Amino acid sequence: MASIDLNRVERLLRPRHVAVIGASGDPTKLTGRPIGYLKKYGFKGQILPVNPRLSEIGDLTCYPDIQSLPIAPDVALVLLGADRAEQAVGDLAARGTAAAIVLASGFGEAGADGQKRQQALREAAGSMRLLGPNTIGLVNISDGIMLSASGALEVAGLPTGRISVVSQSGGILGSLLSRAADRGIGFAKLVSTGNEADLDTCDMLEYLVEDANTSALAVYMEGLRRPDAFRRVARRAAEVGKPIVVFKVGRSESGARSAVSHTGALAGADRMYDALFKQLGIVRALTFSDLLDIPAALASGRRARGNRVAILTSTGGAGTLVADSCGLAGLGVPAPDAETAVSLARLQSSDDAGSIGNPVDVTLAGLRPDLFRAAMSSLLASPSFDATVVVVGSSALAQPHLVTDAAVACQAESDKPLIAYVSPHAPEIVRLLNGKGIPALTNPESCATVLVAMMRSVVFTEKPATAQAAAANGFADATGAFDEAESKRLFASFGIRGVQETVAVTAADAAKAARELGETVVVKILSRHIAHKSDIGGVKVGVAPDDVALICDDMQNNVARLGHQAEGFLVQQMVRGGIEMILGLHHDPQLGPAILLGMGGVAAELFEDTTIRLLPVTRKDASDMVDELKTAKLLHGYRGAPPRDIAALVDAIMAFAAMGEQLGDRLKEAEINPLFVMPAGQGVRAADGLAIFRDQS
Amino acid sequence: MASIDLNRVERLLRPRHVAVIGASGDPTKLTGRPIGYLKKYGFKGQILPVNPRLSEIGDLTCYPDIQSLPIAPDVALVLLGADRAEQAVGDLAARGTAAAIVLASGFGEAGADGQKRQQALREAAGSMRLLGPNTIGLVNISDGIMLSASGALEVAGLPTGRISVVSQSGGILGSLLSRAADRGIGFAKLVSTGNEADLDTCDMLEYLVEDANTSALAVYMEGLRRPDAFRRVARRAAEVGKPIVVFKVGRSESGARSAVSHTGALAGADRMYDALFKQLGIVRALTFSDLLDIPAALASGRRARGNRVAILTSTGGAGTLVADSCGLAGLGVPAPDAETAVSLARLQSSDDAGSIGNPVDVTLAGLRPDLFRAAMSSLLASPSFDATVVVVGSSALAQPHLVTDAAVACQAESDKPLIAYVSPHAPEIVRLLNGKGIPALTNPESCATVLVAMMRSVVFTEKPATAQAAAANGFADATGAFDEAESKRLFASFGIRGVQETVAVTAADAAKAARELGETVVVKILSRHIAHKSDIGGVKVGVAPDDVALICDDMQNNVARLGHQAEGFLVQQMVRGGIEMILGLHHDPQLGPAILLGMGGVAAELFEDTTIRLLPVTRKDASDMVDELKTAKLLHGYRGAPPRDIAALVDAIMAFAAMGEQLGDRLKEAEINPLFVMPAGQGVRAADGLAIFRDQS
Repeated sequence: MASIDLNRVERLLRPRHVAVIGASGDPTKLTGRPIGYLKKYGFKGQILPVNPRLSEIGDLTCYPDIQSLPIAPDVALVLLGADRAEQAVGDLAARGTAAAIVLASGFGEAGADGQKRQQALREAAGSMRLLGPNTIGLVNISDGIMLSASGALEVAGLPTGRISVVSQSGGILGSLLSRAADRGIGFAKLVSTGNEADLDTCDMLEYLVEDANTSALAVYMEGLRRPDAFRRVARRAAEVGKPIVVFKVGRSESGARSAVSHTGALAGADRMYDALFKQLGIVRALTFSDLLDIPAALASGRRARGNRVAILTSTGGAGTLVADSCGLAGLGVPAPDAETAVSLARLQSSDDAGSIGNPVDVTLAGLRPDLFRAAMSSLLASPSFDATVVVVGSSALAQPHLVTDAAVACQAESDKPLIAYVSPHAPEIVRLLNGKGIPALTNPESCATVLVAMMRSVVFTEKPATAQAAAANGFADATGAFDEAESKRLFASFGIRGVQETVAVTAADAAKAARELGETVVVKILSRHIAHKSDIGGVKVGVAPDDVALICDDMQNNVARLGHQAEGFLVQQMVRGGIEMILGLHHDPQLGPAILLGMGGVAAELFEDTTIRLLPVTRKDASDMVDELKTAKLLHGYRGAPPRDIAALVDAIMAFAAMGEQLGDRLKEAEINPLFVMPAGQGVRAADGLAIFRDQS
Repeated sequence: MASIDLNRVERLLRPRHVAVIGASGDPTKLTGRPIGYLKKYGFKGQILPVNPRLSEIGDLTCYPDIQSLPIAPDVALVLLGADRAEQAVGDLAARGTAAAIVLASGFGEAGADGQKRQQALREAAGSMRLLGPNTIGLVNISDGIMLSASGALEVAGLPTGRISVVSQSGGILGSLLSRAADRGIGFAKLVSTGNEADLDTCDMLEYLVEDANTSALAVYMEGLRRPDAFRRVARRAAEVGKPIVVFKVGRSESGARSAVSHTGALAGADRMYDALFKQLGIVRALTFSDLLDIPAALASGRRARGNRVAILTSTGGAGTLVADSCGLAGLGVPAPDAETAVSLARLQSSDDAGSIGNPVDVTLAGLRPDLFRAAMSSLLASPSFDATVVVVGSSALAQPHLVTDAAVACQAESDKPLIAYVSPHAPEIVRLLNGKGIPALTNPESCATVLVAMMRSVVFTEKPATAQAAAANGFADATGAFDEAESKRLFASFGIRGVQETVAVTAADAAKAARELGETVVVKILSRHIAHKSDIGGVKVGVAPDDVALICDDMQNNVARLGHQAEGFLVQQMVRGGIEMILGLHHDPQLGPAILLGMGGVAAELFEDTTIRLLPVTRKDASDMVDELKTAKLLHGYRGAPPRDIAALVDAIMAFAAMGEQLGDRLKEAEINPLFVMPAGQGVRAADGLAIFRDQS
């Protein structure tokens, strides 16, 4: 897929002239707002209103139609309804306009008619770029260019900052804008992509990642249209060190996706996004307020090198709240080293360094700015801590500068994260701190969330393996469901070892095969038509060779009674000493092929102890999958049991992934269940499996 | 424990005269604030400053010492430092003061010296009631009486409301006060109990539960000194229909408690509080903002009869946020019934009732107040929904009354919960709605949390069983650790059946016992000195009778080599067809005896699938414990397996609880592991067990 023309997007975000199609002279109307906002925020370029019923709007000449415009504008803001937008877009494209922003709703989101209308709109645009429809427009604060009708622009002042926002919802853009303004958090650019008939989230990210005014990106996402483009821009963002924070809705819809196989049923679509974000180093915001708090903290550019947090407070309760939240988030709140403790005690005129805990409570010193500042300085300099939280208590309501001056002064002394928790309602203190680049949070839980995000550093050191096509060649004509033996031959060709087994056509052959194995065996019915053999009594474990023939006859009768046809029997060696796992592959309709790893067994199934990664995967991804399972301890040798062959399990995951990549869309789904992970050095064994190819017809 | 004298607390909260000991004439000083606050909020009674260096403070006569006061005051606010507070408290008590509030810190929280000082303070108070020390005082908004130095009282206006607060931290009280004022949430009374040298959280709750101005209670808790008093007041609160919401810190400290037995290790102290709150119908606030949001919603008095939520929005993104949060919290967001859908479609001039979803998006109608109001009315009246969330978008910034007027008008039409989610930063709208009794939330996640809390109704229909002492009589002299056989006899005497087994002194006796059982058996070493037999090879399962003697000899040698002495052997029937569980009893140092139920087996152990209840338990508690386990499905008959005897399991839990109550402190801990739950109708079997009594010496 070709890269977008960043120059076109540049003209959209930084136009020299803006035509406003359907502008009203009444500033209280939605169609009257954009010109007001352009002027209010000091747009330096040309504003060209178009409205056949007006000859001027304020001091601006108003043109009767697009054809009459004196120049081809960089941007046209189309304020017309859905029924008239298509014509306007066609006229604008004919006029040579670079980009149009269409606010009207009633397109792709409005059923089949709307989708047709959206298609027509897109065609009318031709090579002109289109933002929307169903967008609130864009807000370029860096350059003072407002191309939006959002009521949120009514607010008194919008601070300039280094966060840029891409939102699929215009309302959310407005919400972020007014909430950030209240908190003194500044933005660079905000773009609402709406229905994404043309320019989408990935296009805008691609531009903003290169934007010199942007240090961190916040994304409100309802769905991702181009996962591969997202992968590319996420890698580029990591390269240039600009974190992307995504709030994606739809976490509770995970049950909605229809799933045909066992693997599919365990893997909800939202979990796929989780996997994608994890693999790309994207920070996922889990509450809406995180979508503002995390980018604001990351935009400071500061990162923690470890997880040890110092808390400085003049109010015990609030310090405890922060400490408790940090503990719950897995951060450490250790006591300071001896040297730091001595200096903190001295500040409070005490010799008792042993009494200095964490939170460091300077209730008495708190009212003396010099002591508070010295304590903060000491904590920032201490080798015991990777980050500091300063707690602002109710006493600051009367003396707001007591804490803020100290924090601002100390900030310059260290490059470690310094954040503030503001306990009372104190909006001025919050604005003051955020304005000085000290993230100021109003929820204790957010302090912990933000510090965890500041600990992460996204580095891609390993490229996903590029699959070799050799093994896939043998399966060029594969179609439909494979039976167990065929499935395991497929997996074996990619390097995943099966168990010793014989395919027998008759019951007598099966008995003979069992006697050759010379021990108790597993007997299974073999059929392409039966996906879940054990549900119909098609699997017997621990069968003595002498009983095999009788059991085969029984199975065949069962299957026949259910109307199925069996191709024969599978006689297998019993696997002992392995831990049962599940390894699956299936396609997410939006995000493509994914690998699922899970522990087998009933209890693990009840806990849904599974983990997912999208293809392609790196060896580190595969190894992380194993570690993420709660039951991973079993593999490491739980309670005196031998450790299992984890390296071979990782190999098997990589092999399954390579198979998924090589066979692509042709392989609909595959599963090994159980995959036995044997004691260390003895590899893995695929004891049962299933592969379903797309029908070739 | 005797009930507190509510009349004394009444005089503390509604005094006719207040002495201020150590009052300053400088209102900017902490010691100058209280008189200022008393006057500012219109205290009608007498203010009596005491300060030897001043003759008057403003228009008030200032007394040189406590002895010179013209009357014995109802309340004295002691603003002196820790070193002088004791003398003042003694003088006040001698003067006949009803209650004193001591603000100074440096007592119980400050090491051994501080604890001694606190003891002295308490003794000096005699029969005078004491609030604090280390408190910020109390704030009685219902009656306009401020007995506090909290800087939060600087705020412009404190709305009166029906929530009362008890906080063990003064800073948190201040934080709640200023945050609530900003949001237009009103309080009745707020009390900071500080170190609780005398009056504690339970005393204050006992008073406030009976307070006519209080409908809901919010508690900030660091620890509970009197669990039994808390139980009583929680039951009383449930009787009078006043919900208690608790935010308890210390969730991340759960690992700190030292645990000697297996059961103890699984049950963290914070989980004990969780159990206590659950058993008492207390709502636990899990984030700090919930401590304000949940009581505010509950104070409306409205309750949802089911979990079906209607969402009305004029902004798509924000409606989606609320819907997603509701889904994650287990609430339903169903489409409306046909009749409601038709009426909603008609409001938007449409015949397409099928297009009406939930959230109900009235983007177009949103700008017409009459339509918005009619839609809200229709949703509140609809039998499809138990509660309605109305979303306020950015358009409301320009027209705040559009949504608020409609909500206020509709509220009166229904007694169902109606709450608002305010998407932009719009503090005036939030205040306006809260002031009208419509809970207005600013986090989508909080909407869901609040609705879940509004669904709960606390009804105690069942009294915990009172244990009969009969079974315990046989164990009057019990001391130290019981061996397995003794432990199981103890459990059997309370009605929990063991497995068929024989105690054998010699290896030959053991072999004989095995042959009498006539099948493969379990052989165990028997010793009071070995708590975990299997760790030292003291348990063999599936032993053929002929092998028993040899195995016994081996075990005895093993044990002797480790320096232990065995009392003999236990030869047991093998239990087949049961599901392994763990049933434990231990004492929490603060909250008393507790029962733990968990699934056995390695995987369940890795997931820590356990649940806890404090004694006494009701049969419903016991039944809830079973249901709470993630592995409960195994008991109900998972994947074609037979259902197990859940009734017998509940009986066993009740029996174990009765044992714990009857033996009280004497039984330190007990555990059955495994407890086999047999197929339905076949009961349970205690296959191994342990009981440890307090040493009698």
